[in-house]
Amino acid sequence: MTFVVNRRQVTVEWGHCDPAGFLFLGRVFEYFDMSSWLLFQAALGVAPQNLGAAFDIVGIPLVGAQANIVTPVAFGDAVEILSNVSAFRRSSFDVQHRLLRAGELAIEGSETRVWAAADKDDPSKLKSRAIPPAVIERFKSE
Amino acid sequence: MTFVVNRRQVTVEWGHCDPAGFLFLGRVFEYFDMSSWLLFQAALGVAPQNLGAAFDIVGIPLVGAQANIVTPVAFGDAVEILSNVSAFRRSSFDVQHRLLRAGELAIEGSETRVWAAADKDDPSKLKSRAIPPAVIERFKSE
Amino acid sequence: MTFVVNRRQVTVEWGHCDPAGFLFLGRVFEYFDMSSWLLFQAALGVAPQNLGAAFDIVGIPLVGAQANIVTPVAFGDAVEILSNVSAFRRSSFDVQHRLLRAGELAIEGSETRVWAAADKDDPSKLKSRAIPPAVIERFKSE
Amino acid sequence: MTFVVNRRQVTVEWGHCDPAGFLFLGRVFEYFDMSSWLLFQAALGVAPQNLGAAFDIVGIPLVGAQANIVTPVAFGDAVEILSNVSAFRRSSFDVQHRLLRAGELAIEGSETRVWAAADKDDPSKLKSRAIPPAVIERFKSE
Repeated sequence: MTFVVNRRQVTVEWGHCDPAGFLFLGRVFEYFDMSSWLLFQAALGVAPQNLGAAFDIVGIPLVGAQANIVTPVAFGDAVEILSNVSAFRRSSFDVQHRLLRAGELAIEGSETRVWAAADKDDPSKLKSRAIPPAVIERFKSE
Repeated sequence: MTFVVNRRQVTVEWGHCDPAGFLFLGRVFEYFDMSSWLLFQAALGVAPQNLGAAFDIVGIPLVGAQANIVTPVAFGDAVEILSNVSAFRRSSFDVQHRLLRAGELAIEGSETRVWAAADKDDPSKLKSRAIPPAVIERFKSE
Repeated sequence: MTFVVNRRQVTVEWGHCDPAGFLFLGRVFEYFDMSSWLLFQAALGVAPQNLGAAFDIVGIPLVGAQANIVTPVAFGDAVEILSNVSAFRRSSFDVQHRLLRAGELAIEGSETRVWAAADKDDPSKLKSRAIPPAVIERFKSE
Repeated sequence: MTFVVNRRQVTVEWGHCDPAGFLFLGRVFEYFDMSSWLLFQAALGVAPQNLGAAFDIVGIPLVGAQANIVTPVAFGDAVEILSNVSAFRRSSFDVQHRLLRAGELAIEGSETRVWAAADKDDPSKLKSRAIPPAVIERFKSE
């Protein structure tokens, strides 16, 4: 069994690069964030802005992330980002991201996110909630 | 009569500059935005995150902005941003921003913002509201 | 005679929106910037990162920009950005941008850019240069 | 023996927060990046934009980073960022960052950077170079 992989094409923008001409790391985490939303859309069939309402959650907030630059990416580079859930736990999960340029791995990273609802006792606070098995099932591909 | 001017120091960051080494224009508007919040804090004595509650509004959303680059600003430059309301209208106002480097004007611009509350008939929508005279009074300096 | 119009689709990202849930203005100018690069690619057939070398210039630096928000755009919105040169002058030009949601104008704006080469006497400085007629010709559509 | 710790104050900006009202993770890595430059300035007495020339390097490019959110930080929060080199290797080093709010750890993370010069055989490429002992010495505090 494997997990659904979302693939998307991104062109590295002028404003995403630093004075050395390379993609700034803060932007890499923006790429990852949008890639996770699109992965969820691909697997669950729900647009990002409707995810909360569809599953009675507040969202899937990030609680950690990391990235390693294998080879720098520059302005104008056409890259492909492959994203998939690499682990589901009770109420949190990891998303793995691989950024390829010309088919070669350039940047790899991951995010840890929580399946989060509003706390019933204090709606201003978030509380992690068990990820429904039906959701996890949708991320499996044959 | 003149208006209160807020002054703040900013050092141009590596991640704020483009491959040419100059401050990217999108970042200039980030500088302006924060400068407006700090101007309101200086004039009204209310921290940005408390502004809405203090005046029974949703906020002061931007509806327009412009900037002109007189001379480019680069990584590591220490700049000073001077901000003041340049015009109050019934429910909107303009904020003028001047970014100086070594005392010389480098970038000038402005924002137009609205004094906005939630619509009573549809709280999901914003509605402009008359700016209280007491608020305008606080932006005047002798 | 009309000018070439570049059209591109953008989905408003989570990280592009502010706590009110709306597209942050600094990001609008990022959208405009990339739209201008793509317009030049469409008209001239040169990838953004090769533009300088192809025309013996340093680039097309921004010297001013403005935007007006007609109606706010939110997280997840699919928007279309139409961009075209609206005026060519001797060594500078204006790019007009219109951001549509569901076919309706949501944000309009413009950039002023310079056709810039390195100064022969001081390569660390930029100098505007006359835009070649052959370049301007390529932006005309029948 | 301990390492020099740089401390700086940052106020979380409106444009740095997402629709949930919390600091967006991409911005955390911007905070880290600037904190590293300021740590180097504090330890070496060289302004960021002069670091390359002062040590005959191209810079200190990032090759990896990670962050964990202990508790979310919101618009308007006044935070303090503590940064220090946590490990020096032959030609690379780690910078540890701790973001505190009201004295409590809110976000922790680290960056891995390389002491990089231009390759003599191909100046367009970077090559890691041994970090001078005199540089490392400056990061030690008694």
